Amino acid sequence: MKITAVIMAGGRGERFWPKSRVNYPKQFLSLTKDGETMIQKTVQRLLPMVEITDMYVVTNVNYTSLVQEQFPDLPAENILSEPCVRNTAPCIGLAASVIRKKYGEAIMLVLPSDHLIRYEEMYIDTLRQAVAVAEKGENLVTIGITPTYPETGYGYINFARDTDLGMPGVYSVERFVEKPDHDTAQRYLESHHYLWNSGMFVWKVSSIMANIQALMPDIYDGLVRIEEAVGTPDYDSVLWTEYQEFRSESIDFGVMEHAECIYTLPGSFGWDDVGNWLAIERINPTNEYGNYIEGDVITIGTERSTICGGKRLIAAVGVENLIVVDTNDAVLICDKDSTHDVKRVIENLKICNRSQLI
Amino acid sequence: MKITAVIMAGGRGERFWPKSRVNYPKQFLSLTKDGETMIQKTVQRLLPMVEITDMYVVTNVNYTSLVQEQFPDLPAENILSEPCVRNTAPCIGLAASVIRKKYGEAIMLVLPSDHLIRYEEMYIDTLRQAVAVAEKGENLVTIGITPTYPETGYGYINFARDTDLGMPGVYSVERFVEKPDHDTAQRYLESHHYLWNSGMFVWKVSSIMANIQALMPDIYDGLVRIEEAVGTPDYDSVLWTEYQEFRSESIDFGVMEHAECIYTLPGSFGWDDVGNWLAIERINPTNEYGNYIEGDVITIGTERSTICGGKRLIAAVGVENLIVVDTNDAVLICDKDSTHDVKRVIENLKICNRSQLI
Repeated sequence: MKITAVIMAGGRGERFWPKSRVNYPKQFLSLTKDGETMIQKTVQRLLPMVEITDMYVVTNVNYTSLVQEQFPDLPAENILSEPCVRNTAPCIGLAASVIRKKYGEAIMLVLPSDHLIRYEEMYIDTLRQAVAVAEKGENLVTIGITPTYPETGYGYINFARDTDLGMPGVYSVERFVEKPDHDTAQRYLESHHYLWNSGMFVWKVSSIMANIQALMPDIYDGLVRIEEAVGTPDYDSVLWTEYQEFRSESIDFGVMEHAECIYTLPGSFGWDDVGNWLAIERINPTNEYGNYIEGDVITIGTERSTICGGKRLIAAVGVENLIVVDTNDAVLICDKDSTHDVKRVIENLKICNRSQLI
Repeated sequence: MKITAVIMAGGRGERFWPKSRVNYPKQFLSLTKDGETMIQKTVQRLLPMVEITDMYVVTNVNYTSLVQEQFPDLPAENILSEPCVRNTAPCIGLAASVIRKKYGEAIMLVLPSDHLIRYEEMYIDTLRQAVAVAEKGENLVTIGITPTYPETGYGYINFARDTDLGMPGVYSVERFVEKPDHDTAQRYLESHHYLWNSGMFVWKVSSIMANIQALMPDIYDGLVRIEEAVGTPDYDSVLWTEYQEFRSESIDFGVMEHAECIYTLPGSFGWDDVGNWLAIERINPTNEYGNYIEGDVITIGTERSTICGGKRLIAAVGVENLIVVDTNDAVLICDKDSTHDVKRVIENLKICNRSQLI
C-alpha cells in the first residue's frame, strides 16, 4: 500500500523564545550544530520510507513560505495551509481529505515536525512495523516512548501486554491519559504499563476517516466538502470557509481516547521532543565543563550552561546552570530550573502589546 | 590662598567592561540614573569651593576631546593631556608645574575623577579642613576613609592619634601600606589605626614640588622644563619629550611613603570608589526584589541582580546574584562573586587581538 507522511508543522514553539518567534517558530530553526532545521531533519529521516512527493506538510498559512524555502523539492500542492489554528484533529483531517482524494487509499504516517530522533534506522524499522499493524482492519497505531523518569509534561498511553494480533512488541492501548501530576507520573513509571504519547500515529486514510466520521461527524462533513474541492479552483475558498468553522480539537481527545482497535509500539529510537532550551545540551555535545557553546562566547569559570550567541560577544563569568540565548532584539538569561517560566516573558510581552518581540 | 583642583581622569576603567572601553572609560560614563557622568559629578561637587577656571583635568591625550565634550565651560588650557601613561606621580607633577607657573603658589586639591560621594556638603567641609592643614608649613594631607570591612583591594593609611597640630580630627600618618591580604586587612580593621587610602590629596603646590624635588629629582627636572614651556609655543613638544622620559611612578610610592609632615583626615562623606559592577547596586536604589534594573528588562523570579540593558530586551528568568550588562557589541553575564574575573575577559580579548571590543 502506498505510504504517505503527514508532517504537522503549525506549532509556535514559544518555549524556544527568543530564537523561536511566532513568525519563525522552532520547527524552522536549526537547534543542532549541523545547521539542519528540525523540519528538514524530520523529512530527511523519512526519505528511506516515503518519497518526497508523498509527503504532506500541514502548517499555518503564515508559515507556507517558510516551508517552501526549506523544501524547494516539495511539490507546492503538498503544502497544506491551515487558514487558522484549530489543533490536530482538523489538521490531520485536512491531510486525510487531500490524501483520500489523491490516492483513494493509503497509509498515513502522522508525525510532528519538531522532534529529534537519534537512531534513525530503528525509527524507520518501528514505522514499518506500525505500517504492518495499520494495514489490518481499521487499526490506529500510535508510537509510544518508554518513560525513563516521571515527566509531567507529556500525555501517557496505558497499554495491555496481550493483544489479539499475534505480533510481539505490539500492544493494545487501554486508554490515553492527560499530563499527570508528579505522583501519578511516578506511579505510571513504576507500573511498566504506560508509555509517553509522542504524537506519532500510523493508520490507513480509510481508518482515520471512519473514526472521524463516527466520533466527530461535524468535522467530517466539512472535510468531505474540502475533499470535493481539492484540485478545483474553489479549493482555497472552500478550505477557508470550512476550516474557520471547525472547532479546535486534538486528535487525542477527538479520536484516540474514544476509538477502538488502537495499538501502540514502544519506540526505542532515541526520541527527544526538544521541548525547551534544556534539550539543547541533550541533543548537542557539551564541553569538558558541561557547557554547550554556540557563537562568539568567552567563558570564565562557567559550568553546566547553554550559551547560544548571536552577532555579539557574550562573556559569561563565574556562572552555572544558565541558559543564555542572544538574538538581534532580545537576550534571554534563564536558570535551567526555570525554563517553564519563559512563557511568562511572552505573556508579559503580549500584555504590553510588544508583538514584534514575540 | 587660591584653591585649585586637579582631577585625575586618565584611568581606563577595565572593571566596568563592557560598558567602559579603552576609548570611553568609566569616568566618562553615567553609572547612576541621573545621567551625569562620574567626572561631571566630580566637578559639580567641587563648585562650592573651587571655580571652574581653577580646575585642571589631567587626562590621557586620547580622552582630551571627551573632557572637552563633557565640560564645555572648562577653559581648554585647563585640560592637561598626558602624551602617555605614567601613573600618578608624573600626572600630579604636570598639574603642579602648570599651577605653579600660573599662580606661583596655590592649594591643590588632587582628586580622582571616578569616585562617588554621597554627602557632598560633608565632603566640602572635610576638604576645607584639609586646606587649613595644608596651608601650614609643607604639610601633605591625604583624605582617609574609615574602613567598614577588611577590603583587600585598597591601600591603607596607618595613622597616629596624637599630632602636634592641635587640630582635633587631623592625624599624623605613620606609613602608607600596600593592598593587604585578608588576615592583614582584618588586623588593620580591628586595630582602629588604619584608614583606606582614597587617593585624594591636599597640599600647596610649593609643598608637593619640594617633595618631588627631594624624592624624585629626575622627574622634578623634567617638570621644571615643562613649567618653563607653559604658555609658549614650545609647550606641546616639550611636554611630549619630557613626559615620555618620565618613569612610571605612583605618588603614593614616589612621595607619600617617604615624605615627612603627612597628615590624614578621616572622611565620613559616604565615599564609594565605584570599583566594579558590584557598586551599581550600592550607588543606585534597588527594587523590592533587590534588583537594580536599567533599560528594557523583563524579570521573572529574579533576585539580587544588576541588569543594565542596552538597545535590546533582556529577559531574566529565575536567576539571582547576577550582573548583566548589554552593549551593542558585547554582553556580560557575571556572577556577583566573580566580578574580579571580568579582567580575564579583557585579557582573553587582548590575546586574540580583538581590540575593537576592549
